[in-house]
Amino acid sequence: MDDANLSGWGPALLSTDPEVMASYSRDQSRFTEHAMPVAVLAPRSTEEVAEVLREAARRGLAVVTRGAGTGLSGGANAQRGSILLSTHRLDSIVSIDPDEQVAVVQPGVITGHLRAAVLEHGLFYPPDPGSVDSCTIGGNGATNARGLCCGQYGGTPDFVRGLEGGLADGSVMRTGRRTAKGVAGYDLTSLLVGSEGTLGVITEITVRLVPRPAPPTTMLATFGTLAAAGTAVQQLTRAGTRLSLLEIMDRTTLSAIESMSPLGFDTGTAAILLAQSDDPDSASQVTLAADLCRASGAEDVAVSDDGREGDLLLQARRLALPALERLGDWLLDDVCVPRSRIVDLITSVEDIAAREGLVIGVFGHAGDGNMHPTIIYDEGRPDRRVAALRAFDQITARALELGGTITGEHGVGALKRGWLGTELDASAVRAHRLVKQAFDPRDVLNPGIAIPGP
Amino acid sequence: MDDANLSGWGPALLSTDPEVMASYSRDQSRFTEHAMPVAVLAPRSTEEVAEVLREAARRGLAVVTRGAGTGLSGGANAQRGSILLSTHRLDSIVSIDPDEQVAVVQPGVITGHLRAAVLEHGLFYPPDPGSVDSCTIGGNGATNARGLCCGQYGGTPDFVRGLEGGLADGSVMRTGRRTAKGVAGYDLTSLLVGSEGTLGVITEITVRLVPRPAPPTTMLATFGTLAAAGTAVQQLTRAGTRLSLLEIMDRTTLSAIESMSPLGFDTGTAAILLAQSDDPDSASQVTLAADLCRASGAEDVAVSDDGREGDLLLQARRLALPALERLGDWLLDDVCVPRSRIVDLITSVEDIAAREGLVIGVFGHAGDGNMHPTIIYDEGRPDRRVAALRAFDQITARALELGGTITGEHGVGALKRGWLGTELDASAVRAHRLVKQAFDPRDVLNPGIAIPGP
Repeated sequence: MDDANLSGWGPALLSTDPEVMASYSRDQSRFTEHAMPVAVLAPRSTEEVAEVLREAARRGLAVVTRGAGTGLSGGANAQRGSILLSTHRLDSIVSIDPDEQVAVVQPGVITGHLRAAVLEHGLFYPPDPGSVDSCTIGGNGATNARGLCCGQYGGTPDFVRGLEGGLADGSVMRTGRRTAKGVAGYDLTSLLVGSEGTLGVITEITVRLVPRPAPPTTMLATFGTLAAAGTAVQQLTRAGTRLSLLEIMDRTTLSAIESMSPLGFDTGTAAILLAQSDDPDSASQVTLAADLCRASGAEDVAVSDDGREGDLLLQARRLALPALERLGDWLLDDVCVPRSRIVDLITSVEDIAAREGLVIGVFGHAGDGNMHPTIIYDEGRPDRRVAALRAFDQITARALELGGTITGEHGVGALKRGWLGTELDASAVRAHRLVKQAFDPRDVLNPGIAIPGP
Repeated sequence: MDDANLSGWGPALLSTDPEVMASYSRDQSRFTEHAMPVAVLAPRSTEEVAEVLREAARRGLAVVTRGAGTGLSGGANAQRGSILLSTHRLDSIVSIDPDEQVAVVQPGVITGHLRAAVLEHGLFYPPDPGSVDSCTIGGNGATNARGLCCGQYGGTPDFVRGLEGGLADGSVMRTGRRTAKGVAGYDLTSLLVGSEGTLGVITEITVRLVPRPAPPTTMLATFGTLAAAGTAVQQLTRAGTRLSLLEIMDRTTLSAIESMSPLGFDTGTAAILLAQSDDPDSASQVTLAADLCRASGAEDVAVSDDGREGDLLLQARRLALPALERLGDWLLDDVCVPRSRIVDLITSVEDIAAREGLVIGVFGHAGDGNMHPTIIYDEGRPDRRVAALRAFDQITARALELGGTITGEHGVGALKRGWLGTELDASAVRAHRLVKQAFDPRDVLNPGIAIPGP
């Protein structure tokens, strides 16, 4: 351990102990690189964040910011010679305002804690990434996180009104507003949201809240063919059903769930749809949804307005990833396609899985076309690693062909940086580099992440 | 007329005739400067826009982009020696997709035309600026326009999914996506939306649509005191009533309306609230709203689920500006405050009006705190002009004091450029300049507009 690492960082220094640093050195992604940082810093205030940024600038060190490390694209992986700035000590809910329906929070607040705190004021913060009980609001903002609730409500970017952020030069900038509307100047808030630590370090977030919704009504529908499930999604969209959640799972995922925890799905089931409405008239919304599923060829349709029964119906969705994880090492992908092309994507994934000799389960948010093909492989077998990566690339390419995007909610990070230049045109790639240069001329904030490489 | 102006512009050249150019040389703002452009260009395609931008760069001319010229902050005013790029020939609705609920449109499409076109597909485009039947989607995007419908739905920025834009160097960039979600790279779409022609020229917009809502139920409530109206707004917010519209008008505005077109408001009425819900259960939402207004001290409350009657109740809101305009020259201001501070703002405006000897009517969007104090003055009397500007500055300062913003929906333009540096901190001002420099290093796109001056 180098003494130079210990001095000068002030009270923000958490550790330079290799074991501690190792536990902060990577997120939950696969196929991304990480290295040991030179120090883990955990500032307790905006001013301490600014000091860390100034000190890093003075030493010429890269800065990687980490929330809870639940990311899936390598955006919080420490880099060789970088410092690792953890936001976990910045964990105060600064204020909750029921009249303006906003909360002001520090970045290290766990998303689930914020959701619980605002509920006590009769308010609701909808974004609920899969890791909602461990991920942080700052990480959600930096990566543009979303979740199950996003069909009707939108994701993190739709809820962030304003930010405070530390910039590469150690200055602190406030963006956005507290009011419901405001158009004073460029929308730098939206620019920072989703910039994955490459433009600044979020030190405070102002999020809007909505009134606490009604208790939900839930529906589960099974389909004998993928095409019928696709028709149902189309009919639900066209009818304008107000669903707070609409999830799809394919045969592979269902079969993995049945192996782990038999829920009684027929082996002939090609896909299921799970829907929920928290509308004041949720019962009639879900009844309409159930009718449309039946008319589209659903085999079984169950509806419940009982909270506990609803949770049971949703259980299958919660088991999707744990069930697939049991089958081997996994690479959880994240693409988004137009809702009308979900079936095309799943069919293509089935073809790719067969061709590569892999198990790939698809589940995801049918309400917005955001699918999570989950590739199961054997990390210990180099040929299987290569096959997994090949499948990953083929799925990403197919999503683009279908008019989709390479990432719906997990972000670009290190994992998809090579793909970003394929989705964007040359002029947009150039604009990314110019924006990065404007905010971070010496390329110290999360270098090599999120923006297209040369 | 200089021959040099006529050659080289290609088919995009509309006119160099002074009379024609004069009609394109300014928007509807007051107290902003404008000059005669050197030419009015009206390209018919993205490629023609790019050619105009390249030719302007070659000649070293500034480019001011204009939609329908309905702006209220001088953002589309021609500048000395600039060309004026009008988008009115780019007026195609490229596609409407009922499955993905998106429309792709050229910037010159009239907002009202888009709204009518998507209704035929059972879809709804909510943003409805006051000028909805004459303003353009491109202008709405460039200025971040909103309108009456924004309490529940949000404004233009909440509906733009992707853009195509011509940049200062004549290249064309695509940003954003067509899918419901997508987080690939920086949110350059939001950066361009609201940038008032200073970063690029919007050549195509992809907007999301929502299902056509239910027929609305409407409420009008009158209040004897401003405080009672403020309490009602607070109660409506806290109760989470789902209102698609919630407008407030003050005594001065009501009195101007009564003078023009007597609707029978009592002279003791200090304020009215107008509410509308287009929820599936709009009747119960508005009944709840009416009960809350009565409990807050409303004097008369009228509710109707009849379309024609609802229109009659809304008539007062539509007459607000025309009625105030009859009283003299007018300066329509636009500030946004937290909803709980609307009454404080209106009270302050009353004080300012008394002090300056001016009539200032306040009406606006109570659902989001966006108020439009409208200053009536006599353009022919220099002292009254000065008083009007003084009142304008005092109102803007008061909005900031109350935790609000200098502009809720009209944009910064030329009118409020001097104020932007007061709302933003030094670091944010610097970030604005750096972003501008990154996109437009030679400062040719709407120079001197929207971003803080030195």
